[in-house]
Amino acid sequence: MDRLIEAIENTQNPSVVGLDPTEALVPPQVVASFADEVRDSVESPEELPAAQLAVAYFEFNRTIIDAIADIVPAVKPQIAMYEALGPAGVDVYTMTCEYAAQQGLYVLGDVKRGDIGSTAAAYAHHLSGVAGGESSETFDPWHEDAVTVNPYLGTDGITPFVEAAAAADKDIFVLVRTSNPSSSELQMLDLADGKKVYEHVADLVEGWGAETVGSHGYSRVGAVVGATHPEEGRALRARLPPTFVLVPGYGAQGGTAQDVAGMFDEQGSGAIVNSSRGIIGAWKKTGKYSESMTADEALGLVADSARQAALDMRDNLRVAVYR
Amino acid sequence: MDRLIEAIENTQNPSVVGLDPTEALVPPQVVASFADEVRDSVESPEELPAAQLAVAYFEFNRTIIDAIADIVPAVKPQIAMYEALGPAGVDVYTMTCEYAAQQGLYVLGDVKRGDIGSTAAAYAHHLSGVAGGESSETFDPWHEDAVTVNPYLGTDGITPFVEAAAAADKDIFVLVRTSNPSSSELQMLDLADGKKVYEHVADLVEGWGAETVGSHGYSRVGAVVGATHPEEGRALRARLPPTFVLVPGYGAQGGTAQDVAGMFDEQGSGAIVNSSRGIIGAWKKTGKYSESMTADEALGLVADSARQAALDMRDNLRVAVYR
Repeated sequence: MDRLIEAIENTQNPSVVGLDPTEALVPPQVVASFADEVRDSVESPEELPAAQLAVAYFEFNRTIIDAIADIVPAVKPQIAMYEALGPAGVDVYTMTCEYAAQQGLYVLGDVKRGDIGSTAAAYAHHLSGVAGGESSETFDPWHEDAVTVNPYLGTDGITPFVEAAAAADKDIFVLVRTSNPSSSELQMLDLADGKKVYEHVADLVEGWGAETVGSHGYSRVGAVVGATHPEEGRALRARLPPTFVLVPGYGAQGGTAQDVAGMFDEQGSGAIVNSSRGIIGAWKKTGKYSESMTADEALGLVADSARQAALDMRDNLRVAVYR
Repeated sequence: MDRLIEAIENTQNPSVVGLDPTEALVPPQVVASFADEVRDSVESPEELPAAQLAVAYFEFNRTIIDAIADIVPAVKPQIAMYEALGPAGVDVYTMTCEYAAQQGLYVLGDVKRGDIGSTAAAYAHHLSGVAGGESSETFDPWHEDAVTVNPYLGTDGITPFVEAAAAADKDIFVLVRTSNPSSSELQMLDLADGKKVYEHVADLVEGWGAETVGSHGYSRVGAVVGATHPEEGRALRARLPPTFVLVPGYGAQGGTAQDVAGMFDEQGSGAIVNSSRGIIGAWKKTGKYSESMTADEALGLVADSARQAALDMRDNLRVAVYR
């Protein structure tokens, strides 16, 4: 986790921008501006909207990345938004990751993969890449510095990711206590031994990371803990000293800087807070958007609004965390 | 689940062939035969092996599909094997799904997706496709009849998939008791109320499907229960009458026809058993392979061996299940 922690220190900003585009978050004139470009690239007319959205998502993401790359340490593209468009969307996911990495950002791929051991080994190529054959270079198609992983299948579904992370100087984040309302249906169940299910998972997570603690005291196996659960987050911070925490659910889902403060350690490290719609959709709340804008004007508004929202979030977190 | 059940009845074969290619499972001369074809399609030399494997996987899959399409009802491509090659692999995953569907097979996409509600809605486009804009057709980039889903996030991570399945006459299968050794670390924990975690999940699964029971008595929300857990499988069959069961772990992972028999209902319905390596890797166990074979000869051996292995599995299941 050292690279992420150092990127946070360099920016004095423990936040990550979620690059989760949807059709509603991209100004329509930006989407429309790609109509001609994609027309010859599709095989049948029903493919046009997905192809057009895919290229618009990349332009939108590039605009956001350029606007925030000097003030935030990391981005977290959510692959579901891209898979929703089919393989063309997956291409744009990888292009987004590559572009963000080129701009110096730590790229946290929110893919929530999880499977049995032999299959997890295949997914772990997200981190390890593919051997390059006669080329001495490894081919890294995904360009991710970390991925999120689901714990439901236990240790043998996690080990391949941990090994790939250690070999490639990368990290993983395991779902522990997710931000959504119904997460309690499973995660908050009381076990016979007195623990909650999520506490049991948390203890597994600490074990999975034990061999990979870096120079800042945190292992390569982080935990996902929603900002919507401030008390459990505080308890987990105390329970898992070597476990870095990724905190979704800030902003649009209701979490505040005060809610997440308890997930940081005494030095103001140990956690990074994600905001997606609050940053990339900030342009919709400015009152400055107009349908008559050109695509470039709309992207300019997207950029300015995203940067301001990212600065506001940074400043709010600094006040709450660097106490 | 009606379409799958009818496909099983038509073939009298409750088995599904896992299309999970790996480099070790594709004869090397088949991979080598695509060296020239891909050379111009890559941007840098380290991409060559992945690009070459991707096209070889499709040729391999097509060979298997042609060899078994008249005797099995369904295939289950495991997307991890394709993601391991990057976006080019994902393309081949969708091409494989499309080709299998064209041959009349039910396509069960083993993607094990799971996320919070708004993100699950994006993943659910795997089933619903993308609106086709001015075209009246919906664009279906994934060509899946069903997907596997992870329950760790609770109801709001599942509902979008159930709604998409109902709208598109498709299905989902939720992980309940997976086949891998360490699955017990979480799934077998004792809850304070006396249930095991997997039993609690099983009860959630039954509830998630309750509104979607079809004409054969099974809902659109199936459960994944490993062949390596015959006693729990038998208990789940009794516990969840309207829940169809997908059974991985047969063959290479150790499950036998007797182990899975208890997961079927009294009419010999209610479950489908997956075999991956046992079918697609059957050529390696024949003793007939030779490095001097041409690519076409090797694919011929792959086809014959896969068909024979699929017939053997079908016959073993018929004896054990249609009792």
